[in-house]
Amino acid sequence: MVQLDFTLSAGPTVATPRTLAALGMPITYHYDPDFLEAFRRTERKVAELFRTTNDIVLMQGEAIVGLEGAARSLVSPGMHVLNLVQGVFGKGMGYWLTDFGAVLHEIEVAYNEAVDPAAVEEYLDAHPEIELVTLVASETPSGTVTDVSRIGPICRARGVLTLVDTVSGVGGMEFLTDEWGLDVCVAGAQKCLGGPPGVALVTVSAGAWQSMLANERAPRSSYLSLIDWKTKWLEGGVFPYTPSVSDMHGLEACLDQVLEEGVDASIARHFASADVARAGVRGMGLELWPASDDIAASCVTSVRLPDAVDHIEVRTHVREHYGVMLSSGQGAGNLIRIAHMGPTASGLHPVVGIAALGRSLVDLGQPVNVGDGVEAALAVLSNQQ
Amino acid sequence: MVQLDFTLSAGPTVATPRTLAALGMPITYHYDPDFLEAFRRTERKVAELFRTTNDIVLMQGEAIVGLEGAARSLVSPGMHVLNLVQGVFGKGMGYWLTDFGAVLHEIEVAYNEAVDPAAVEEYLDAHPEIELVTLVASETPSGTVTDVSRIGPICRARGVLTLVDTVSGVGGMEFLTDEWGLDVCVAGAQKCLGGPPGVALVTVSAGAWQSMLANERAPRSSYLSLIDWKTKWLEGGVFPYTPSVSDMHGLEACLDQVLEEGVDASIARHFASADVARAGVRGMGLELWPASDDIAASCVTSVRLPDAVDHIEVRTHVREHYGVMLSSGQGAGNLIRIAHMGPTASGLHPVVGIAALGRSLVDLGQPVNVGDGVEAALAVLSNQQ
Amino acid sequence: MVQLDFTLSAGPTVATPRTLAALGMPITYHYDPDFLEAFRRTERKVAELFRTTNDIVLMQGEAIVGLEGAARSLVSPGMHVLNLVQGVFGKGMGYWLTDFGAVLHEIEVAYNEAVDPAAVEEYLDAHPEIELVTLVASETPSGTVTDVSRIGPICRARGVLTLVDTVSGVGGMEFLTDEWGLDVCVAGAQKCLGGPPGVALVTVSAGAWQSMLANERAPRSSYLSLIDWKTKWLEGGVFPYTPSVSDMHGLEACLDQVLEEGVDASIARHFASADVARAGVRGMGLELWPASDDIAASCVTSVRLPDAVDHIEVRTHVREHYGVMLSSGQGAGNLIRIAHMGPTASGLHPVVGIAALGRSLVDLGQPVNVGDGVEAALAVLSNQQ
Amino acid sequence: MVQLDFTLSAGPTVATPRTLAALGMPITYHYDPDFLEAFRRTERKVAELFRTTNDIVLMQGEAIVGLEGAARSLVSPGMHVLNLVQGVFGKGMGYWLTDFGAVLHEIEVAYNEAVDPAAVEEYLDAHPEIELVTLVASETPSGTVTDVSRIGPICRARGVLTLVDTVSGVGGMEFLTDEWGLDVCVAGAQKCLGGPPGVALVTVSAGAWQSMLANERAPRSSYLSLIDWKTKWLEGGVFPYTPSVSDMHGLEACLDQVLEEGVDASIARHFASADVARAGVRGMGLELWPASDDIAASCVTSVRLPDAVDHIEVRTHVREHYGVMLSSGQGAGNLIRIAHMGPTASGLHPVVGIAALGRSLVDLGQPVNVGDGVEAALAVLSNQQ
Repeated sequence: MVQLDFTLSAGPTVATPRTLAALGMPITYHYDPDFLEAFRRTERKVAELFRTTNDIVLMQGEAIVGLEGAARSLVSPGMHVLNLVQGVFGKGMGYWLTDFGAVLHEIEVAYNEAVDPAAVEEYLDAHPEIELVTLVASETPSGTVTDVSRIGPICRARGVLTLVDTVSGVGGMEFLTDEWGLDVCVAGAQKCLGGPPGVALVTVSAGAWQSMLANERAPRSSYLSLIDWKTKWLEGGVFPYTPSVSDMHGLEACLDQVLEEGVDASIARHFASADVARAGVRGMGLELWPASDDIAASCVTSVRLPDAVDHIEVRTHVREHYGVMLSSGQGAGNLIRIAHMGPTASGLHPVVGIAALGRSLVDLGQPVNVGDGVEAALAVLSNQQ
Repeated sequence: MVQLDFTLSAGPTVATPRTLAALGMPITYHYDPDFLEAFRRTERKVAELFRTTNDIVLMQGEAIVGLEGAARSLVSPGMHVLNLVQGVFGKGMGYWLTDFGAVLHEIEVAYNEAVDPAAVEEYLDAHPEIELVTLVASETPSGTVTDVSRIGPICRARGVLTLVDTVSGVGGMEFLTDEWGLDVCVAGAQKCLGGPPGVALVTVSAGAWQSMLANERAPRSSYLSLIDWKTKWLEGGVFPYTPSVSDMHGLEACLDQVLEEGVDASIARHFASADVARAGVRGMGLELWPASDDIAASCVTSVRLPDAVDHIEVRTHVREHYGVMLSSGQGAGNLIRIAHMGPTASGLHPVVGIAALGRSLVDLGQPVNVGDGVEAALAVLSNQQ
Repeated sequence: MVQLDFTLSAGPTVATPRTLAALGMPITYHYDPDFLEAFRRTERKVAELFRTTNDIVLMQGEAIVGLEGAARSLVSPGMHVLNLVQGVFGKGMGYWLTDFGAVLHEIEVAYNEAVDPAAVEEYLDAHPEIELVTLVASETPSGTVTDVSRIGPICRARGVLTLVDTVSGVGGMEFLTDEWGLDVCVAGAQKCLGGPPGVALVTVSAGAWQSMLANERAPRSSYLSLIDWKTKWLEGGVFPYTPSVSDMHGLEACLDQVLEEGVDASIARHFASADVARAGVRGMGLELWPASDDIAASCVTSVRLPDAVDHIEVRTHVREHYGVMLSSGQGAGNLIRIAHMGPTASGLHPVVGIAALGRSLVDLGQPVNVGDGVEAALAVLSNQQ
Repeated sequence: MVQLDFTLSAGPTVATPRTLAALGMPITYHYDPDFLEAFRRTERKVAELFRTTNDIVLMQGEAIVGLEGAARSLVSPGMHVLNLVQGVFGKGMGYWLTDFGAVLHEIEVAYNEAVDPAAVEEYLDAHPEIELVTLVASETPSGTVTDVSRIGPICRARGVLTLVDTVSGVGGMEFLTDEWGLDVCVAGAQKCLGGPPGVALVTVSAGAWQSMLANERAPRSSYLSLIDWKTKWLEGGVFPYTPSVSDMHGLEACLDQVLEEGVDASIARHFASADVARAGVRGMGLELWPASDDIAASCVTSVRLPDAVDHIEVRTHVREHYGVMLSSGQGAGNLIRIAHMGPTASGLHPVVGIAALGRSLVDLGQPVNVGDGVEAALAVLSNQQ
């Protein structure tokens, strides 16, 4: 196996040298005044990224700790919840909701499509008993997005709370928490921000806090508790447990870079790389996984693989022969994913992915035209300058 | 406020440059073959540190995520559990046990004393219904230790499972998981290992797994689930969620250093620094918090403060005037703690703590003899060479 | 201008994360026992790299400080010196030799060719007054090499000293100092070793020392003095001036990596990447600069540019539009250079260079077939696995 | 031997984590536009530090490369030069001046005293043939300073050029290049700036350039050449040789920190630490080396050792037993030096030096009162807050 030269996976993605340097800064006591100030400053930067004045909770752990904590906090037994499913992450949320005692409603579409906001509107009107809608802004495993900009206001207008998994959906696509009326949003740092994979970024609206506090079953005195963070830290200045000083340094550094670049510029950069990647895929004669470009994620391009090859086999071949780490389908189908996420949403990175994927498919006997793919990708890139 | 020059707090403690460099290494995909190998290699190193052949689970999050996960996994409603309390962490475990449905038994002593193993033996003999004993090997907030070497075998001999909080108890004191018959042990990296504060190190015996699997209430499909780690990762090679690549790099680096130094040498180093610190405290005319040196922790020296000053006030003064970060009592009493933990368990570090604490007390009007304290500490240090 | 994504320049080249981490390790006093040991250990590793038992001198400064110091030390006024010229670095040495008082003889060939060892042999036989031969093992600006393996023994057999500029010639091509009978060799760390650009690695034979010591004009008590390093450091353990602690850390780290990989494996890796690069260049329909592949450097592929475009213009376009840093001709001609040097002599790196160069030439109106170039390069790479 | 815990040596000194991180940033091509911009930005920051509008030359190598280059450039055979000697560095300059063909005049005082500006004035008036005065602003080996603020204007008023070795004299003491009329000043980064030990910072006045350009013997086409830097880089934008990208990153980082802190604040910090150190030395019953506090350096406190112990023996003992690296006399006498330089000019750092030195002297049988020394130092420190 050759050495790893390029990481183009769908998160954790590459971090910049500046972010890595921050992760390697000295570890201080979590009650050191400098750290306390840094923690609060980082919360404000997260809020700026999310375009929100809601409270920010920075939980220590992979983003899923925030999703689980939020879902457990919001759901009380017997509550009617509408879960939108267009991929494996959405599907998984449904299992949790049932576990937590919700009465589950689902709108589910094929994993290469997106839930139609109109369908949500119609469903909510038909089911006024629904108190919460859960959805995934960016279904990383299939490389598709949901139109949160329309679904958010539909829910808010009906007094329905929203829980949005936007783990890979901030920094790479528009995300306007307050304007869209979103109640609880959960992101990770290791996707479009190019940050460390050990922290969950959570925003909580006043309405969501009210609902959680009223929920007897919401976690309290627990690692999963959002309420602990509210009462102990946000209101009392005492951490419910020791946060990871290193991760917070890394998080602040990657936020600084996105905010200095400008959130909109960061988003535009992801879209530009996605255009390059898609042109390359099509140029090679391969098919994109998403049903249309409208719903294709800006942070990862998912490619439908020919039936003759398997996604794990392809991922392994690319890594072992060309030193490039791509992502496989992760349950969504026989697809392979070239991410352009954080620092890899830039310049020739997608071309590296195209070349590695294309040549690997040739190696595996598939009739792929790598040269045409690379030329098509370069033509798009050239036009972007 | 002056700048921070020395961190002598009781965890997170200082990390070495080598550990920090590891934390700043490139972030790779968690399924990159190199990372998978590193993860498994790190598990083996943790096992070596714990002197165990039990399974190792490396959970993403502060050590408390491991403690909560373990307690929830082991405790079923109505189970009789004996909790040993000699400090705030032990006390907190009792609240959890009750929350999780246990019938709580407690042996509690003053927070400057240690539970007597004989008392445990007697209690277990009198209460054969007890199925689990929970205890804290090193009560960091009060700087005292429990004699796990005796309590472990007492429990094992009676078929009683043990859950040991040894967050600050590996690397700085003897800890023989298998020889002492301990079932579930939970440590953090940010204490005597000088590692990152974002990972929980858990060892699980076969008996403990059996108990967890039989427990319907044990967390499953949850961030808190130990069972997920067993079934998905240990048996299936699939991570239940994305581990923090950075933290794992940092963890392996600090383990490498402890193992290269030798676990016994690392322990001896902590004991040596504790001797220096205690001599300095007494030399200044101050009193140690622990009732006897036998039960004083090797990783942190807790000092009983004169009533005229408050521990938070003292900690703040030391930090703001002398750039040294100590730890306060954290609920255990009016005490201040000078840690010698990981890299700070070395050479003149405790002397820095003595000088900073002593002069601060003088500043605050206390009749402390700093020069005598420093001389006493130096005399001990000189003899150690 | 877009951001820098890929550095494929001909030195300084990219350093690995491990080398960068070493450069960022704490700076210690240069007489700290640990640093003294590290310095001597590093000297031994340099000797291993050079395959020599000669003395090693590690001068603080870019490699040219070693070349100037060596030339000044060896050349006394009136000494006959044969200088081999096949590029700008060789040409520059001739100017120096004249400045330093030598009677200059030169064999010069076109800058895309290499001096024939037979011509050297013939010249030396015809001019027995020659005491020193100066040559460049790897003419980085033109991407060509000299056959030191044959010229070295020719000189040694005639008692003629050799001064070899091998700045980019260790780690990427065979270099057998002792077997080839080379007297003074000077390398840099920032080329095939992927190290820091601030240190000159010099090997000195006993015969060369004798010649230097006998030379009244050899620098003494000077930053340029090799004799100072011999008498003060090698014999006396005292540094003539403070060495750069950071650079030494970086140097040792990059040496460790090359030695762990194996010098031969490192060389093979450079040759493999050169094959990929040349196939790509030819596949695009472009011409290589060196007259034949036999004399093409393994660490950098120089490409003859169409007359219609200028090398600086091309380098600038590639950097500004595609975020790739290539090297221009540096005086050798209208050529552009894609380096595969140190860490970039690996996998798809040359393909990135081909794509960026090719598309830039298209942008500039040249009829280049980028897709064919990339396919040709990938075909070679695929066969190497 | 115990491990190194504290570096309190007189340069290289400790670098901050931020400076170290900069040293470990990716190495780019030296003609990358980003690096070119960083290089020029760094020149401007050096000028700001030196309070000058003169040209800045950043030579690659230890500071001595700048001193040698400047002296060789300024001195032509037969030129009368007045060299001020109050320590080993000044003495060494005299040897160089003679080597380079100057007619040497010297004012020399004992190595614990300072040259009197009035003596310089008198000497220059008596010797109008003198064209250049050479002096050392801060004689690091003996821990004394020269009054450049008075000597500079004396020389300027007489049209005499000045060459000032201020290697450890910027950042820790007032240094006003233009106001004092200084022509060529040479500093290093590894002293009061806490930077890397591989770069020489040189300022050159218009008059000095004129003198150099008129000097046939000034180095040209040489690593030592200041003229090359002027003609090639300052005027032509071409580097005379590859600068160390890493060192420049480190240099800019340490400059940023000093400039953000404020040069005056940085100086005040050094003076404060010197006060603490001197109080500690005297409190222990030891004698300072400088004849008076007026001429004691702010960056290093030199202590006269009792005759019964040798400075190398003491330095070794302190390092081997207490993990603290001090500096010995380096030829200036039987003295030991505790530096408070760059990051170690802060808080309790001098106290660490006092404790380690004091206890070591006790170990070696000297009647030193460590406790009193530490108390005296702490008393001064307490008053500074």
